[in-house]
Amino acid sequence: MKEFLQEAKSLVDQMTLEEKINMLQHEAPAIPRLGIKAFNWWSESPHGVGRCGLATVFPQSIAMAASFNTDLMEQVGDCVSDEVRAKYNEYVKQGFTDIYQGLSVCGPVLNIVRDPRWGRVPETYGEDPYLTGRMGTAYVKGMQGSGKYWKTANILEHFAVHSGPENGRLEWDVDVTEKDLFETYVSAFAYCIKHGKPAGVMPAYNRFRGVPCCINKYLMTEVLRNKLGFDGFTMTDAGEVELNFSMQTLAKTHAEMAALCIKAGSDLSITDKTLTGGKRVYDSLRMAVAQGLITEEEIDLALTRVMQVRCRLGMHAEDCEFDRISYDVVDCEKHRRLNRKMAQESIILLKNDGILPLNKETKVAVIGPCADDKLVMLGNYYGYPSRYSTFLSGIQKVCTKPVEFARGVTPTDAYGERPNETPAYEAVIAARRADVVIFFMGNNPYDESEECDYDGDRKTIDLPENQQAIYELVKALGKKMIFVSVGGSVINLSCQDKECNAVLQCYYPGSEGGDAMADILFGNTSPSGRLPLTVYAKDTDLPPITDYSMKNRTYKFFKGTPLYPFGYGLTYSDIREDWLEENTVKLTNCGSFDTDYAVLKFEYIPYKNLCGFEKVFLKKGETKTVTFRDDR
Amino acid sequence: MKEFLQEAKSLVDQMTLEEKINMLQHEAPAIPRLGIKAFNWWSESPHGVGRCGLATVFPQSIAMAASFNTDLMEQVGDCVSDEVRAKYNEYVKQGFTDIYQGLSVCGPVLNIVRDPRWGRVPETYGEDPYLTGRMGTAYVKGMQGSGKYWKTANILEHFAVHSGPENGRLEWDVDVTEKDLFETYVSAFAYCIKHGKPAGVMPAYNRFRGVPCCINKYLMTEVLRNKLGFDGFTMTDAGEVELNFSMQTLAKTHAEMAALCIKAGSDLSITDKTLTGGKRVYDSLRMAVAQGLITEEEIDLALTRVMQVRCRLGMHAEDCEFDRISYDVVDCEKHRRLNRKMAQESIILLKNDGILPLNKETKVAVIGPCADDKLVMLGNYYGYPSRYSTFLSGIQKVCTKPVEFARGVTPTDAYGERPNETPAYEAVIAARRADVVIFFMGNNPYDESEECDYDGDRKTIDLPENQQAIYELVKALGKKMIFVSVGGSVINLSCQDKECNAVLQCYYPGSEGGDAMADILFGNTSPSGRLPLTVYAKDTDLPPITDYSMKNRTYKFFKGTPLYPFGYGLTYSDIREDWLEENTVKLTNCGSFDTDYAVLKFEYIPYKNLCGFEKVFLKKGETKTVTFRDDR
Repeated sequence: MKEFLQEAKSLVDQMTLEEKINMLQHEAPAIPRLGIKAFNWWSESPHGVGRCGLATVFPQSIAMAASFNTDLMEQVGDCVSDEVRAKYNEYVKQGFTDIYQGLSVCGPVLNIVRDPRWGRVPETYGEDPYLTGRMGTAYVKGMQGSGKYWKTANILEHFAVHSGPENGRLEWDVDVTEKDLFETYVSAFAYCIKHGKPAGVMPAYNRFRGVPCCINKYLMTEVLRNKLGFDGFTMTDAGEVELNFSMQTLAKTHAEMAALCIKAGSDLSITDKTLTGGKRVYDSLRMAVAQGLITEEEIDLALTRVMQVRCRLGMHAEDCEFDRISYDVVDCEKHRRLNRKMAQESIILLKNDGILPLNKETKVAVIGPCADDKLVMLGNYYGYPSRYSTFLSGIQKVCTKPVEFARGVTPTDAYGERPNETPAYEAVIAARRADVVIFFMGNNPYDESEECDYDGDRKTIDLPENQQAIYELVKALGKKMIFVSVGGSVINLSCQDKECNAVLQCYYPGSEGGDAMADILFGNTSPSGRLPLTVYAKDTDLPPITDYSMKNRTYKFFKGTPLYPFGYGLTYSDIREDWLEENTVKLTNCGSFDTDYAVLKFEYIPYKNLCGFEKVFLKKGETKTVTFRDDR
Repeated sequence: MKEFLQEAKSLVDQMTLEEKINMLQHEAPAIPRLGIKAFNWWSESPHGVGRCGLATVFPQSIAMAASFNTDLMEQVGDCVSDEVRAKYNEYVKQGFTDIYQGLSVCGPVLNIVRDPRWGRVPETYGEDPYLTGRMGTAYVKGMQGSGKYWKTANILEHFAVHSGPENGRLEWDVDVTEKDLFETYVSAFAYCIKHGKPAGVMPAYNRFRGVPCCINKYLMTEVLRNKLGFDGFTMTDAGEVELNFSMQTLAKTHAEMAALCIKAGSDLSITDKTLTGGKRVYDSLRMAVAQGLITEEEIDLALTRVMQVRCRLGMHAEDCEFDRISYDVVDCEKHRRLNRKMAQESIILLKNDGILPLNKETKVAVIGPCADDKLVMLGNYYGYPSRYSTFLSGIQKVCTKPVEFARGVTPTDAYGERPNETPAYEAVIAARRADVVIFFMGNNPYDESEECDYDGDRKTIDLPENQQAIYELVKALGKKMIFVSVGGSVINLSCQDKECNAVLQCYYPGSEGGDAMADILFGNTSPSGRLPLTVYAKDTDLPPITDYSMKNRTYKFFKGTPLYPFGYGLTYSDIREDWLEENTVKLTNCGSFDTDYAVLKFEYIPYKNLCGFEKVFLKKGETKTVTFRDDR
């Protein structure tokens, strides 16, 4: 928008070099003379306002991807950004401008799941660039809005070719073919930039072809701006510039490093001065100008992009409608209802011999460490909901008979139980007393995560051994069994697929996840999620996590037979697809259940490739026709 | 009981020395030839079946002590031992005989709180031997029962003179005067042994007058058996014998150590062979006999005491009524109701300017890290309830208006948030939006605990600094404030007492604690708890934690002015005490609230000394007369 560009240019023109340098770092101070308020650029709201207290916590990204529902996704984005604004308004009123309280939010993560063992899979939209692009774009549109002003400024993560391993993610040097680069790693960014118009893009921590992304001119300028046509701002990841400076030898001084960043196309820096002797790298931009490493015009260009975002957020305006969003929307009943709907649609039914939906009078045993764990509901980068349901509490609300319950394994809390506790037997007792066993097993956000104090990647896609052992103990009882695979990525469910009456996949489902699960299990609503990830049948199907080639990875290039393919997912009904022509499909609900249904369109180029999807609601007996448009 | 002694003697007579040695260690194998089943002596049920899956989790011991209600305590014991038996029956049926699944339960802890910073205060009944003796005895009576057979075998902990510091608790060498030994440290054991007839006593980890308790003949035989008349069995603490062997020089060989234990009066050993090269110390008893360090008769004496307990538990009987207790009692509705009652009576009202009870239409903000934390409800040595309420969820159920909520500080979960989150501001927002702020602040079971991987003692009785900071921020808003001090011990509430409209103390209140708190806050029931601990006004009032003299400690000997004295606690009513004679008091409910009331009788010898208490229920206007009997 031209007026914001003009406003930004005018502001930049009036700043001293010192002021400009401050404004290019995430803890930007106020410049009262120019009407500029203090602002902290670092916030996180990937599935609800994160790390900033009270918030509606929606299912994590991988779960929302499973809904294959862009309309719902856009509504979620709209609610989340309402909460971002409501909190921001309240903070500003009180003079607070700290981290996680701002309007510029990191994410969505548009990196592709190359390997299901990667610790950050839960933060992604899965393995398919088409799906990732559409879901990410819907979220960005919902969050930023379509008005004159942006409600939030979203920063796409992490550009580019970033998908683990977490251990040593900074030193990690990636090279891929141009084909893989554009078809796989950059494709979702390209779509989102074109259709979602995100405010920002964040360079990845890793190196690409020898050069750290934040100073990689090929990626940050040639690809991002010239090829993909991105005209927003870029913001480096937390401490990325300082970390890279301290770990590599491309720049000998802070001044050189800062100049390299700006010249490559990195605009604003989320700094971490603890790594560089208390001094932020960008502080040396004055020296860089003095030494002729960069011109003030180059700095102005970067800063104009940054300031344009602040203008477009209405931060200097009197007529920004978002200033009036009340704190009442935070964690409100309306958002809770939408959250439950999204959680329902994120649950994937993988097998059902007819046992589901369950009768409410069924005597059930709920078994597993994921059954009653708040953090399993919330995932990571979460806020604090004032209420939440766990799978156990959701089921307890619906069942007319007392629900048997056993964790089966000791918890992972820091102040948990002694390791010599033997709770497996509890599971056997609970199972014996029930007619149907529902397992909630898999991973928690501690088993798989971003690199922090430990390597966040999983070593295997198998169920953790202690859980598999309990599963075997209970299986021996010969009860009817429903297995809910919980976690943020892929779990090998080969034996569960053979042995259980029903199998479901549930990622980290948000604060309404327990009630949503009960809705599905007891038939208040039909499942309609589909897999955003290939469920491989064994670890040995996977190339090493360090191998960045797409060969033998994802549904497109995997040569083996998956346990469940990408896009797989059942409903309680029976939907017939009649393809009338290439882009038109007639859907008929031939079953006895009203249901949402995601219809997927694949092409063969020559590999199988998702090229369209649509989520529709079909009453029993209802017919609807869906026509796909080419939206590339 | 003579018949059990005969049975035990007869069994011992038929065993080989090898068998005898096995039976003296906690993982006792079966001797099918004699009809003896495998049995694991190590279980924990101090406030509900601990570390063994599903269970009703009652308030922790310090909280139950605050009820000053021995009848209720006995009922709790009865429920807990029903659950112990129900679980044991189920395990036996399935052939499981593992740790935490047996009938011999460690506890209650009858150690006296000498210093409120000790990490294990939550596990005690407070600072007064009279109260401790009565509450412990009620628990033992409730658990063991009064029939021919014992429902459980309780093992009093930790004999003797044991009350921190946790760090280095094994090397810790205590000496106290004979007066302090008998009046303070041993008094509650003496009472409980006389009136509760506990099955067992456990020597403490520490040393007493240079000699580890487990080989301290003065303590374990002269005091315990000869002076206090104890005729049960003794069981050393987890790994106590191995730990002591590896840390001191009194015994050069395992054989010597084992002989010293038995000869001192320690019967059965909870072993930990990881510390002694894979060999349990007691395994060398055969060598000890061969070397003449001990006679087989001495071993027989110890083992007869042990086997007598097994007989009295009905383990070899056909007519034991407890074999029929069904698993249905575990975590059942009836136990939940009793649990809520005990939780209500454990909450102590310390100040009330009339703000309490609250109207259900009040717009409240709930603030603090203890408000919505499951582990704060459960304390330590806990089981897993299938349902629980937190303070937040309890209040949400009652309030007609949405409850504002802010944790205020980052959580301590291992997979929690980043440290640079600044949630304090959330608290300000929440408070601004409410008319009344209810703080739930204090300690969690991680801040104060048994020595594990860290020093479990607190360094201070002050509120953690980050919580005090939030309190100050919110205070500045000038709202009405209710402060609930949460945790297992004493917190300095000096400023809260001055500044808040109401102050309450709530220890770890069990799985119904949130609903019980709402019952109190909104006047469904009147508070009736009283302090089992002196609330000191500052750290400097306390002698060093390493000082074992009682000088200037507890309400008896403290020379300063406490913030709230031992035994303090208000109700919502106004109870008049008219002492008709030394042992008779007429109580009149002159207020407008039905309430439970604990009447306390003190004597001066010459220091103030609790010598009687009784809990009674008084309707509005009602009068009751209580007569105290000398029960020493």
